[in-house]
Amino acid sequence: MPSLDICFSPELLPLYDLRGKVAVVVDILRATSSIVTALAAGVTHVVPFSELEECRALAVQGYLTAAERDGRQAEGFDLGNSPFGYLDGVLAVKGRGVAITTTNGTRALHLSLGADAVVIGAFLNLEAVARFAREQQKDVVVVCAGWKGMFNLEDTVFGGALAERLAGEFDTTGSDATLAARQLWEQAKPDLAGYLLQSAHVRRLNSLEAHEDMAFCVQLDTYDLLPIWQDDRLVANA
Amino acid sequence: MPSLDICFSPELLPLYDLRGKVAVVVDILRATSSIVTALAAGVTHVVPFSELEECRALAVQGYLTAAERDGRQAEGFDLGNSPFGYLDGVLAVKGRGVAITTTNGTRALHLSLGADAVVIGAFLNLEAVARFAREQQKDVVVVCAGWKGMFNLEDTVFGGALAERLAGEFDTTGSDATLAARQLWEQAKPDLAGYLLQSAHVRRLNSLEAHEDMAFCVQLDTYDLLPIWQDDRLVANA
Repeated sequence: MPSLDICFSPELLPLYDLRGKVAVVVDILRATSSIVTALAAGVTHVVPFSELEECRALAVQGYLTAAERDGRQAEGFDLGNSPFGYLDGVLAVKGRGVAITTTNGTRALHLSLGADAVVIGAFLNLEAVARFAREQQKDVVVVCAGWKGMFNLEDTVFGGALAERLAGEFDTTGSDATLAARQLWEQAKPDLAGYLLQSAHVRRLNSLEAHEDMAFCVQLDTYDLLPIWQDDRLVANA
Repeated sequence: MPSLDICFSPELLPLYDLRGKVAVVVDILRATSSIVTALAAGVTHVVPFSELEECRALAVQGYLTAAERDGRQAEGFDLGNSPFGYLDGVLAVKGRGVAITTTNGTRALHLSLGADAVVIGAFLNLEAVARFAREQQKDVVVVCAGWKGMFNLEDTVFGGALAERLAGEFDTTGSDATLAARQLWEQAKPDLAGYLLQSAHVRRLNSLEAHEDMAFCVQLDTYDLLPIWQDDRLVANA
């Protein structure tokens, strides 16, 4: 039986051997939720960057550019890190590529590229992630983006939710991280939005916009779509 | 109000600024439980080492030597990592110094020395740790030794237990790590030994001796004693 493990921070990734495994990169608030939403809204592909300047440079190639630093949209970019940027009709996104850079999510993604397959997870596409894991029958490591390298609740409880979906088919008891994440998910599940309101990260993003984003990002299985890393970009898995 | 934060792994310590703070180093199974027990049993001081050879070298100076690697006593040492080594009467420990090296605990301790005060925490001396924190009125960071750098349950729920004791006097809501640890402690508290039997680490130590050690290490407030770092050694706080 393949196993499911959870890495609470990109800083801990050197302790994990991703070879032969599926890495599920998760940054619930908000990078991976936004990437799922972008592809669902008809964006053709998403190219992640670590640096603002290299990301912005893609504009001349016709890309929409999206950048967030410390929770806010960076200046000179078309979009921030809100999933509503792809939904609100202000920008025509269908058929476009998106170049994106975020504080935590991009780093987690780049550090995960040693895995056999790298996919993007969010509550919005939880079942699509679970189905891919079942199809692959490989060990899965959930890579939490965290907050500047630190543990955060929202990415952790996503790991717990995925473990719940895969329990019985995957060994979800082999690491204390997975055991803890499942217990925290049990606490969170009855009212995920209410649960995350206590989190330090959410309180840091304390604003009407942030709360609307969060209410959106905690929806389960809104999109039957799996972003997957292919040829240096994220595309919807066929 | 000072704050209480929890660092889940020594690998994450570079993200924490320990200056001006109290570091509580915790390695429940079993290094810090054993150090508390050793000092309670009349050991005069404990000197921690990273390497086996430098630790063993202290024998010629009259030290008892204690070493654990991968959960087992290392060859050529007087003691392993079991607290019973200080209690079972086989070795006379009263009035002796102990040189110790363990897989996880020593590393966590050495990485914590940038703090204003470094103390040793265990369930066995939980209230002594809480009292010291109240007296100091400085921010506290619980440094979990973890398992080879990874998150573990036993050190985390100790952090949650300390947060519970200090709630109202310390800000225990400022980080997601502390929030999670408190929730996990709530799960663990009614039957701490039973709770930890699920942990990957405990299952790894699956043996009669390990279970006896665990049953000992989960006792609350057995010793009113606080090991504190002073002049390159751990001594009982006056």
